[in-house]
Amino acid sequence: MSLVTIGSVAFDALETPFGKTDKIVGGAATYITLAASYFTANNHLVGIVGGDFPQDMIQTLQAHGVNTDGLQIDPEGKTFFWSGRYHSDMNERDTLDTQLGVFENWSPVLPDATQGAEFLMLGNMVPALQHETLRRFAQRPKFVMLDTMNLWMDIAKEDLLSVLQDIDCLTINDSEARQLSGEYSLRKAAKKILTMGPKTLIIKKGEHGALLFQGDRIFFCPALPLEEVFDPTGAGDTFAGGFIGYLAKTGDISFENMKRAIIYGSAMASFCVEKFGTERMLHLTQDEIQTRVLSFVQLASFDIVE
Amino acid sequence: MSLVTIGSVAFDALETPFGKTDKIVGGAATYITLAASYFTANNHLVGIVGGDFPQDMIQTLQAHGVNTDGLQIDPEGKTFFWSGRYHSDMNERDTLDTQLGVFENWSPVLPDATQGAEFLMLGNMVPALQHETLRRFAQRPKFVMLDTMNLWMDIAKEDLLSVLQDIDCLTINDSEARQLSGEYSLRKAAKKILTMGPKTLIIKKGEHGALLFQGDRIFFCPALPLEEVFDPTGAGDTFAGGFIGYLAKTGDISFENMKRAIIYGSAMASFCVEKFGTERMLHLTQDEIQTRVLSFVQLASFDIVE
Repeated sequence: MSLVTIGSVAFDALETPFGKTDKIVGGAATYITLAASYFTANNHLVGIVGGDFPQDMIQTLQAHGVNTDGLQIDPEGKTFFWSGRYHSDMNERDTLDTQLGVFENWSPVLPDATQGAEFLMLGNMVPALQHETLRRFAQRPKFVMLDTMNLWMDIAKEDLLSVLQDIDCLTINDSEARQLSGEYSLRKAAKKILTMGPKTLIIKKGEHGALLFQGDRIFFCPALPLEEVFDPTGAGDTFAGGFIGYLAKTGDISFENMKRAIIYGSAMASFCVEKFGTERMLHLTQDEIQTRVLSFVQLASFDIVE
Repeated sequence: MSLVTIGSVAFDALETPFGKTDKIVGGAATYITLAASYFTANNHLVGIVGGDFPQDMIQTLQAHGVNTDGLQIDPEGKTFFWSGRYHSDMNERDTLDTQLGVFENWSPVLPDATQGAEFLMLGNMVPALQHETLRRFAQRPKFVMLDTMNLWMDIAKEDLLSVLQDIDCLTINDSEARQLSGEYSLRKAAKKILTMGPKTLIIKKGEHGALLFQGDRIFFCPALPLEEVFDPTGAGDTFAGGFIGYLAKTGDISFENMKRAIIYGSAMASFCVEKFGTERMLHLTQDEIQTRVLSFVQLASFDIVE
């Protein structure tokens, strides 16, 4: 089925304990569509870049089957730029620089081919813009997923609460879930957030896995213990892209299938962190993905006899 | 099969965000044997207390089927006392007071009935004493498990490395695994620690679950997301007691059965934190335990179709 992803396409400059990069291509929507591209061929990217964005990256996305008709190019403007430095444990990072560029006053334009899409991923950005974009769909997609961040809880809480009422699934990390709900216990936090609109909540815990909540049901997906985490940038978006990509591929939004989708999302994220930026996400094979998913099966499977 | 547990029996005074206690009974061996008592009736406790230790707690342990013949009472001495305060997130705590009392110069005495035991749990204490106790078994138990802590890595590393060479299974938390191995990645840490002696390693991650390593195999057991963690004291020991108690009950130390044992250990730990001290561990039913184990099955089960 058809997936539309709306969000940032950007340049990142990264410093990790393993090295640093110059400006490399990043952005939530880039990671999401790349991850989803391994699951669905009906994969639309809606975003904006400046005249400084490399044409060959657009071609790379197209080679992955991503429809880039919705990627506006503002030849006079500059692409969104973010620069950050990770702490030695990779769990925290400092933002060194943010230049919104063309992203600042962007109003997404939906190409005709995106109308009628069944799956919509609203990548992290100003909540009012996420809401406005959702309203531009003549027919509401059957499954709308949204990512957000602590910043919007600080400065645009009302808009965030408003868009939450119109989505199906929210994905945030554990500290954001605590901030949004005012509850430290993730179980209590989830209960509260599920009254705010979304029927499904995914709480990402980075190296500690992810929790899926729906009604009274909970599923926990571990993160694969890796020998080395090279660069965590984009892992959360890659996870979301794998998740919604798998749902779009199967067209099945039952809880049982969401559990599978979370495993696929986690598998994709486990690749993402193995190299800088999107590098590892550009050349995966279906065999590699299946083998990685089997690692999750081995990691998490047990049977209780009695 | 027969289980012998050696370690501290103590008084704790606790402060958590939910309240504080006067001196209540705690200690590693107390939690371990209590948890194990739900699995095996052949359950020996070896420890020492002072004349101030309440006789009714000894009777309570006996009522749980714990053989307390190895619990020495020094009427002139004082029971080991520890006092601590938890931070608001419950993941960290400060030690306010430690008085070793009769534990300081203790040399464990093994009652005859403990000889021939198949399972031995060496609770956290001075590594040289753990080693000496192990040597006092005329016939080495078939499965020897050891718990330790960062303090001994700081001040008794050589003794610790020495006893590690003679055990089967080590259980430590994530920061201790990092300290012992000098590796941040838990996968790398495990690889290194498995060359130090134990064939099996369990890394406890508290609210983030536990990892079981053996050779190239890894199993991850989640922690149950709880609405409230009331008091984490003893959770790690309760986990260990449930784990080795289940192994002793089944007599099966295959990797597949250890996975089950970790689920049972985690289930027991999830009860422990629901009330102060040992309170919740005193009145569990087999039905409650089975229901809790089924919650883990639901939490972690998925199937990959394809």
